[in-house]
Formats: sequence, structure tokens, C-alpha cells
Amino acid sequence: MVKVGIIGATGYTGVELLRLLLKHPDVSVQVVTSRTEIGRRLDALFPTLRGHTDLVFTDPDSPELLDCDLVFFATPHNVAMRSVPKLLEAGVRVVDLSADYRLQDPELWSQWYGEPHTSPDLCASAVYGLPEVSRAAIVDANLVACPGCYPTAVQLGFLPLLRAGAVELQPLIASCASGVSGAGRQGKIPSLLTEASESFKAYGVAGHRHLPEIEQGLAHLAGAPVRLTFVPHLVPMSRGILATLFAQLKNDTTDCQGLFEAYYADETFVDVLPAGEQPDTRYVRGSNRCQLSVTVPQDRSTVVVTAAIDNLTRGASGQAVQAMNIMLGLPEVRGLELISVTP
Amino acid sequence: MVKVGIIGATGYTGVELLRLLLKHPDVSVQVVTSRTEIGRRLDALFPTLRGHTDLVFTDPDSPELLDCDLVFFATPHNVAMRSVPKLLEAGVRVVDLSADYRLQDPELWSQWYGEPHTSPDLCASAVYGLPEVSRAAIVDANLVACPGCYPTAVQLGFLPLLRAGAVELQPLIASCASGVSGAGRQGKIPSLLTEASESFKAYGVAGHRHLPEIEQGLAHLAGAPVRLTFVPHLVPMSRGILATLFAQLKNDTTDCQGLFEAYYADETFVDVLPAGEQPDTRYVRGSNRCQLSVTVPQDRSTVVVTAAIDNLTRGASGQAVQAMNIMLGLPEVRGLELISVTP
Amino acid sequence: MVKVGIIGATGYTGVELLRLLLKHPDVSVQVVTSRTEIGRRLDALFPTLRGHTDLVFTDPDSPELLDCDLVFFATPHNVAMRSVPKLLEAGVRVVDLSADYRLQDPELWSQWYGEPHTSPDLCASAVYGLPEVSRAAIVDANLVACPGCYPTAVQLGFLPLLRAGAVELQPLIASCASGVSGAGRQGKIPSLLTEASESFKAYGVAGHRHLPEIEQGLAHLAGAPVRLTFVPHLVPMSRGILATLFAQLKNDTTDCQGLFEAYYADETFVDVLPAGEQPDTRYVRGSNRCQLSVTVPQDRSTVVVTAAIDNLTRGASGQAVQAMNIMLGLPEVRGLELISVTP
Amino acid sequence: MVKVGIIGATGYTGVELLRLLLKHPDVSVQVVTSRTEIGRRLDALFPTLRGHTDLVFTDPDSPELLDCDLVFFATPHNVAMRSVPKLLEAGVRVVDLSADYRLQDPELWSQWYGEPHTSPDLCASAVYGLPEVSRAAIVDANLVACPGCYPTAVQLGFLPLLRAGAVELQPLIASCASGVSGAGRQGKIPSLLTEASESFKAYGVAGHRHLPEIEQGLAHLAGAPVRLTFVPHLVPMSRGILATLFAQLKNDTTDCQGLFEAYYADETFVDVLPAGEQPDTRYVRGSNRCQLSVTVPQDRSTVVVTAAIDNLTRGASGQAVQAMNIMLGLPEVRGLELISVTP
Repeated sequence: MVKVGIIGATGYTGVELLRLLLKHPDVSVQVVTSRTEIGRRLDALFPTLRGHTDLVFTDPDSPELLDCDLVFFATPHNVAMRSVPKLLEAGVRVVDLSADYRLQDPELWSQWYGEPHTSPDLCASAVYGLPEVSRAAIVDANLVACPGCYPTAVQLGFLPLLRAGAVELQPLIASCASGVSGAGRQGKIPSLLTEASESFKAYGVAGHRHLPEIEQGLAHLAGAPVRLTFVPHLVPMSRGILATLFAQLKNDTTDCQGLFEAYYADETFVDVLPAGEQPDTRYVRGSNRCQLSVTVPQDRSTVVVTAAIDNLTRGASGQAVQAMNIMLGLPEVRGLELISVTP
Repeated sequence: MVKVGIIGATGYTGVELLRLLLKHPDVSVQVVTSRTEIGRRLDALFPTLRGHTDLVFTDPDSPELLDCDLVFFATPHNVAMRSVPKLLEAGVRVVDLSADYRLQDPELWSQWYGEPHTSPDLCASAVYGLPEVSRAAIVDANLVACPGCYPTAVQLGFLPLLRAGAVELQPLIASCASGVSGAGRQGKIPSLLTEASESFKAYGVAGHRHLPEIEQGLAHLAGAPVRLTFVPHLVPMSRGILATLFAQLKNDTTDCQGLFEAYYADETFVDVLPAGEQPDTRYVRGSNRCQLSVTVPQDRSTVVVTAAIDNLTRGASGQAVQAMNIMLGLPEVRGLELISVTP
Repeated sequence: MVKVGIIGATGYTGVELLRLLLKHPDVSVQVVTSRTEIGRRLDALFPTLRGHTDLVFTDPDSPELLDCDLVFFATPHNVAMRSVPKLLEAGVRVVDLSADYRLQDPELWSQWYGEPHTSPDLCASAVYGLPEVSRAAIVDANLVACPGCYPTAVQLGFLPLLRAGAVELQPLIASCASGVSGAGRQGKIPSLLTEASESFKAYGVAGHRHLPEIEQGLAHLAGAPVRLTFVPHLVPMSRGILATLFAQLKNDTTDCQGLFEAYYADETFVDVLPAGEQPDTRYVRGSNRCQLSVTVPQDRSTVVVTAAIDNLTRGASGQAVQAMNIMLGLPEVRGLELISVTP
Repeated sequence: MVKVGIIGATGYTGVELLRLLLKHPDVSVQVVTSRTEIGRRLDALFPTLRGHTDLVFTDPDSPELLDCDLVFFATPHNVAMRSVPKLLEAGVRVVDLSADYRLQDPELWSQWYGEPHTSPDLCASAVYGLPEVSRAAIVDANLVACPGCYPTAVQLGFLPLLRAGAVELQPLIASCASGVSGAGRQGKIPSLLTEASESFKAYGVAGHRHLPEIEQGLAHLAGAPVRLTFVPHLVPMSRGILATLFAQLKNDTTDCQGLFEAYYADETFVDVLPAGEQPDTRYVRGSNRCQLSVTVPQDRSTVVVTAAIDNLTRGASGQAVQAMNIMLGLPEVRGLELISVTP
């Protein structure tokens, strides 16, 4: 059994990690930390875990972390970058679900996060954990930076088009929508049911922190700089992201459906839907799958891609487990073959 | 008191019309028809009307309709086009909330609705009832075709940019989202709470019936043909539409905020938000207002407009009452000065 | 125009009061206070008010309050009891939406609210503002204590049965459910959409602060002490309360439907539904009405009453306006004849 | 591998059974029938199953059913009673999720379902599949009638009190609430998101079909006839039932918490919460657990029990799998050790 720890498990990505890891056949969760809940049983905070674990939250500075083979950070940004170096030094591999190592350029990170990066040297060496793009590098990585939720959906959607050079590099447009869990488990007024229900709105239009991450990823895929217009929206639901992507085809006769099906033929966790069907966040809830659809409306030159993921599973904790499986040489699907609950 | 009738008031636009008209100080609702509910009290079908009316549904062929000054059609498409000619002949003015007279070209209508138009001669003479565009024509109109819900939001959002010639005519992109009431008050499985909640998805990507209507309107505004990529989505809420629009600025230094504020300075029912604020469908619920915001993210060349309306009020029945007020020479806001219920 | 002020208008009962009072034909809102939002426009905090008011939040200690004819407290408990005495002294009449003067016994208040009452002398003289019970006393009241939301529904539901002596005084059971707005506009984790949606649960079972208020009211109606088992639940919706009440009939042949219809025959804001129909919180959303239904299942001896109100309208701000109308000698329905928005 | 079939898998209990059985290590789903979807892939109807099965719906009269070891009926009432005799004759064991064999008295069944029972002889011999009550009988049963969703929650809640003789047999009150999936996957207007959201209401107050089933079960537990007042409500959520139960203690000093903990000490799927905590439907979503809490408010004589289950899992398909495990001699939890997805 591989010994794993979770730092900062009081949020939604933390409890999602626990849901997956507590039933993972090759893993034993040894230590779960929280600065605010030390000594409390996990299942007292998260009653869904009753009967599934007797673990208790421990101090984030707990030495037990150093005995783990692998540690997950399920923290807000600005935490991992302070603790990761010490763990790596101790030989502990790290999967960071936060934003701290997603940007390779620590200067760019500082611009968007408003503070200096405290372990800038690691930014370039961290492996960006989007398995469909960097599977080989993940195998030997000591530090994996899990992609953000929007970046996962947007990159998986644009990937076949950019790799094939099928679309112009601008304008690229991503009109995305996320459930409220994207705002975290924090008592913020805009996330109240009374505020977020019967509501649909854009936010972060002038600039969202996922923009530089997505542009970095798309540039990597395209082999050239790209400029994306990224508009996230808030949907009155708990989980799920849909990315609706628009690009200009270089050639109107491109067989986009064929291109997507071929590109993802061997990917278990990317599901290209039959032509004419649309992904729905509900179909991937609690699942690590990304559902994709590609359409060229009215046979004109604008191609529309829709990509649905669960922001907490494929957009965070599921993808983190997928990365862990790769790092450990396990089958990639281990512990992730769950059927979504419906309705 | 102006005598009005409502044909087909068992749906959501019907009950929304009743909500507005029963409290309208200059109007008396004389007759309300339904083919399926003849003889039933309105408030038995719609308990929100208890205490506000004693009206009973009557037969759609009821002669009382001919005594009305003005009749609303709150029917599915394909009904008004059969009955409007007779009413007009009898001197009754008509406000049609359905799709029957929105397209000026009856051939185009037939393509999208899959059947011949039965009163094609009226298509060109019907006045398209978007007050901010055709207020003058509405004054004397005998037949007003109320814009669809998506077309209202999309046109109001693009209007200042197109009139000013500030953007390229392609690509124009509208990524829109609607509450479930847009699908009507019908027992369809996809509209069940169990199917539509915790769900966000695109639909009609390959072609939606509102596309030709929007393109007709945008071409009129631009003075040239336009091609729009229009992707509607379904949001787990009852009411509201948000249109998120993308266009390429001809000149990156255009003062879009100033342009919008100036353009709509005198429009009561269009509310350009202060720079940096975003409209929310919740802020216009039950209101006839359209809230607008315009942003040029990262000061690049793609301009983003967001437009929020209530699909049943500004997108249907409220706009119909606004048109009626204009037709009757009443203040445009009469009966429409409601404050949205929040939360 | 009567000059009114609102103290503490940043919460949900505050914005609901504004919705009603800004359109009330006989009232002018002069001053609206908030300790945290001084100087901010109301419509910046509540965008639904855009276009309806230019008011700005002022300091709660503002002397303008003393120029008002009537002041509403839309504050949490523990605020009004400190400021009301000074206002009354200045001749300003007060309608308190908070809990401070609902219990006639300040000792009992202290037990449930965990602190001494700071103006205990006023507790006994405050008029309990349930119009169907104490209309006459409200007319001349200087201080009206508006009933809580649950107490309004529960008392209106039991009222005809208790007045008629038709039921045993125990066991009386109230199984109630409220939308999330009952928890206020505060950033609490349990009120997040991510926590409160897809959730139904009881709370406060061992003891809820509305219990002594309801028991005080029921005892008054019954003319004898009563003991109620009161179990509130949280419903994943914004607004609305349904009280489901159970009592034991003294006589199985009591015509409960007739009793209810007769009792409330002259009450505009209490709507006894036809036998066999059930109230729905959705039917009274944003309305001041209470819908009631009474059933004796299987013709046994347990009578079931269901009472639906909007917790923010009839359960708070609407009832406060109703009380104000009575105090001012206005028609009771003035400013309250709104049709609920549906769907 | 045990060969199982599912009859009528196009509804919500059907897809829930599939979610559980397709991952069950000891079972192979051989045949899934539907009268309306013959020849269609299951994952075309239920996209959550994409990647998990290649099964196709077959005709309900398919002879393959007779090759199964065990067949589930996930049909509306009135279907199983026509087909079960033939299957039993062929040596196929049956787990019926419908109402057809829940009442031991076929006359009573006819009264509530409005038609004669077509296999009345089986009613008395069918085993009522509530494992905590009739585990021993399930082991050898050929026909198990799975309890209804409300009856499961209500019986598990009253069970310790009735077995201990701790409460009076009347009045017994069950104020229950269910998510909309209880109404099935059918296009009914009241189940639309536009009708059921922002809504809470009682239904079936005068008489609900689960009443005789619950009374039969409670009488069995109590060893004497009981009369229950049962009021179900509809909650704006997809899944979940909460039963709030009220009874009169014979002795005010009964240690109810201790009684419940002792009674269910050995039951994996019944979780008595620590004193002071309340169950939430969200905590058991997609799980086979029933969460229970017991309180005696204000130390008076009315005891309040709250019981939460997922109506589709513990209230239907999960309990059916639990029964199957017992019938097959498997560990009772096999295939059911899932952690609920949260949020």
C-alpha cells in the first residue's frame, strides 16, 4: 500500500480526494491535515464519510507527512509553495492541486497572484499534470501541478484542433460556466443559495487567474503564442464545468468529428460524443471523464467545441488521482471507474 | 379602459401577461382563451392569480375576441398565422408573442418551421416589436411581432456596436443561456427538475430557430448581411437569459463603455451597468429591463458584451406590454415599473 | 406622504421592505441606515433597485430618523431594544421586524437570547403585529413587534381550531420548513448553494427561538397554556415557509373546512383553499398572502393544517407594511396587491 | 458470476440498479428490458453509463430472462404481478421494486390501486424486503417485495420505539419529504424544474398509497394495529427522503438515544447519529445508509425521530441489491460500500 497524505482537506477538493482515495485499492491515507480542525474526526466535518474512516485531522506541520510516499496539497494558492521544497527534499513526491506551480514563469505568477513566489526555482521543473498532454513526464515527476478546472476543460477541447493546426490562433474564445463549488467551501455571500440560485452571470471578464494558465497551455499545444478571450460564468448548481469554445477553421471542409475521435481514441477519460449529441455536466458528475462534442454550425467557418467535466473530479481531485496512478505505475483508471449518480 | 384579449394563456408567457395586464391601470382583460381549459377558472390553473381575477378560460373561437381593441397571442408558433388575418380584418390590433411573424421572408420561415406559412402576405407588413429599434413603427402598427427571447438579448447587446460600425461583421458570436421556462409549460422529460437541475449543457448548436431571426435583425442594424454563431445553453433555473457576445473591434481604442452609455441614455428599459459590473439574470427577474455590460478584456481586440433579461418578461410578455403601451399612446413604462423580487 | 425610515436595510427583510415601500403610494422612504455601508447607494448593494431609487445608506445614528413618522427595524435581534426607546420618546412610531419585542416576558426573552433585555418595560406594551389577531390594538400602537416567520404561519394555521375549541391542547405538532433566506444574508457555510441544495434536514429540534413566541401566541388564542412540538426544516429554495400542523380533534365530525372558511371569510391576506387543494410556497412568493388548507386524513381524529407564506413578505416585511397601513389608517392592502411571479 | 436481469430499466430505479450492479463484483447483468426502447443502447438513453456497458434494451418477453438466476422488476405497479408467476415457475428468483407484492392482503391492494390483483396468491408468501426486520426470511425467499421509499424511512425510524414498546400506538405522525425523483422519469408538469423549484408543498394528504404499506409494517413491529397520520411533501431536489416522526412516550424518562444506538448497533446500513446531530438527505445521497436521529424536545413527552435515506438507493435499488446479497449468501454490503458525492 502506498502511503499518502493530504494537506488542507477541509475544502471541497479535499473531501473529493478522500472520497476517491479511501476506496482506492492501492493506497492508504495516512495523514490528513488542517490548520483549523486539528483533532477533529474527518467524519464530524464531512458526515458523508461516516462509516468509511476513523481518521482525525492533524497539524499541517505534522512529521508524519515526511513518512508518506506522496502528498497532495488541497489548499488555496500560496500554501504549497511554502511547504513543497521541504517535502521534496525529504523524498516525498507531491501532487499539488493548487495554483502554485501551474505557471512556469514565476514572474507571471506574481503578477496574477499579487505576491512574490516563494519557491520560484520549482516552477519550471514542476510537471503540468494534464495526462493527455504530458503523461510521459508525469511518470517520473516528483512535483505535479494539477491543472485548474477551467484550464482542463478548455485545453482538452482545443487540443485536437491546435495539434492538427486546423484553426487560426486568433480569435480563440472560451465561454465557460462553472458550478458554485468552484468558489470553494467558504462563507461568501455570492455563493449563498439565496444569491446564486435563479442566477446566471459572467464574472472575471476583465481578467481571471486561469487565463495565463490556459494561454500557457494552448501556446504549448499550438507551438506559438495564442491570445484567448476567456469569459467564465457562474451556474446555479454545485458541480460541473462546461466550456464552449469558438475558433475559426482554416479550412471549412475539415472533418472535425473524425479529427476528435481519432485524437482521443485511446483515452479512457476523454469521451468524444457521437455527432449531434451534446455533453452535459450532469453526465460526468463525480466522474473523471471529460465529454466532448464538436460542431460546425451551418457549415460555416466557426467551429464550436463543448467540453464538460466535473470541476472537482476531472478538474481537481480525480485528475490528481489519475496523475498519482501514473506516477506510481498503476493502471491510470485505478480507483476512478465510478459511474455517475443520476438523476 | 382598453379592452384586451389573450389567446392561449395556459403557458408561461400567458400567465406572465396576466400578471402584468391584470394590474395595468389602463387595460381591462376581457377574454382569455384556451382550447384545453374551456370553462375553468384561471386561478384554478394558476393559483398565483387567486384573489386577483374571476376570469374563466373561453373557447379560442369566441366572438368576444372581436370586441377587443387588442389581442395578444401567447400561443406556440403555427397558431397565430391562422387567426390573425380575421382579427385584423375586424379591426382588432394584434400583438403576437409567437414566432409566426418574426421573419419577414415567409420562405425562410417555412425552412425553419417545416411547414408553409398560412398568411405569408402579412410577414413583410408586421412590425418587429423591438422598441429600441422600431419604436416609431410600432405606434401605428396593427400587427406587432414580438421578438423572441434570445433575439431580444442578442440584438440589444450588439446594437450600439453595429450602429456605430465599431466591429467587424464576422465572426459574431453569441453564447447564450436560458432558464428552463424557455422550454414552455409542457411535460417534457428534459425539463424535469430531476433532469435539468445540476446540469448545464448546450443545445441546438447546429441550428436553432432563433438564428434566422437574430441574423435578420443584426443585418438590419448593420445595414449588411451578417453571419452569427449562436450557441444556446440550458441553465438550471426557471427564468432568465444571459447573452454573452463576442465581436472583433475594428479599432482597439474604441470607448465601448461610453458608446453604450450614450446609445441607451434615454432608454428606460435598457440599463448599461457601470464599468466593471456584470448583469445577473436574478437582477432583472420579473422586470422588463435589459441589463448590459461591455468589456474589452486585457485591452485586446475582442469586445465582450453581456446582456441579461428575463426571458418571460423582457423576452416575451413584458416587451409585448411595452409594445401595447406604444401602440396605445400610453407612457411606455405603464404597468411595467416593478421591482424584482430578491432574493 | 408619510415619512418612513428603515434601520438596517442590508439584509433580506430590508431589501424586501424597500421593494414594497418604494412603490407604496402613500409613503416616502426618507432614510435608510446601515452601520457597514454608510455612503453607498442602495442600488449598488441591491442591483434590483437600479432605476427605482437614488437613496444612499446613512449612519444608524442619523438625526433624520427623528424626523420620520414611522421607522422600521430590519435588524438582527438585540439592536432595536437599544434604540427604540429614544425614537418613541421623540414621537416616532416603530415597527420592529426583529425578535426584540415579540415576547411579553423579558425574562423569557433573556433565557432564549442569552442576554438581558435592555428595555424590558416596553415588552408588555408592544403590540404583537399579527393583524388577524390584534388588528384593533395595532391601530393605535406606537410600537409593533412583527411576528416571526414560523410563528406567523403556525398561528394562522391553528387559529380557527383553537378559537373554536375544536382540538385538544396537546399534543400540538408543527413540522415546518423554510427556504434558506430565513438564515439571512450572511456568509455562513450551511447556507451556501453547495451545502443547502440537494439537501433537506431538520434543525433546532431540541429548541428553536421561535418556540416560546409561538407558544405565547397559541396560549393567547386558546386561553390556556399550550405545549407545542416544533420542528423546523431547511428547504433548498430561497423563499417560503410551509407549516404542517397536527392536532387531535375533540370531535371527529367537526366540519373543519367550513370552520376555516368562515373564520377567514373577511381576511384579504388569508386564503383558505378549496377542499382537496394544497398550498404551495411558490404560489405566495413575494405576496403577503397566507394560503391554508385543512384535511382530516382517512376521517380519523388527527386534523392536518398546511399553511404557506413567503417568509420575507408575510413572514416579515409584507406583514410589517400591513401593520403600518393599519397604524396609518390606510386600506390594509395598500401597496401589497402584488401578483406572485410564476414560474 | 450470478446472472441477473432487469425488467423495465428506463426509469430512475432502473438506472440506479444499473449503477450498482454494473460494478458489483459477483454479478453479471445479462439482460435489460424495456417495452419502448428495444434495440437501443443503454448508454444512449443514460449517458452516465457510457464506457461502462455495451448492453442493449431487449423485449420484456425475451426468453433470456428465464436463464437468469435472479430478476429485478424496476417497473411501475401492475407489471410485476403479471410476469412474476412465470419467472418463479421457471426457477428464477425475483426482487420486485414495485408495489405489487408489498401488501400481504390483495384486497387492500385492490382498494388502493383501483384494480384487481392478478396474482393474489403470491401476496402472502412474498417476503417484505426490509433487511433490518426480515433478514432471515429474505435468505430463502424466491420473491422479495422491496419496501417503498417512504415506508423504508418511516419504519426504520419507528422500529426501536415500537419494538421496545416505548410509545403510545396513537397518535403516530409521519411528516415526510421527498425529492422529485420520487415522481419518476415521466414528463409530468408538476415535476418540471419550473414548477417544482422554489416550491414546497404537501400532497396526498387525504390518502397516499404508501399509507397501508407503512401501517402494515408498523402493526407488524408493534404487534398490534396502528393508525398513522402520514403527510408527504415535495422538496425541490432530485433525490432524498427525510421522515420526521412524532410519537408520545409512555415514560418521559426513556433513554431514546441509548435505545436507538443499541437497537442498530450491528446494522451497517443504519447510522444512528450522535445526540444533537441531524441527518441530511445530502449525506446519504447515492448511499444505502439510513441516518437516524432521536430527540425529545424540551424534555416533554413527544419524541421526534428524523430518518434520512436516498429514495432511489436505500428507498429502492440499493435496498434491492442488499436483499439480493442476502438471497445469494453474499456479504450484505457487497457492491454497496460507496461514499456519497459531496457537495
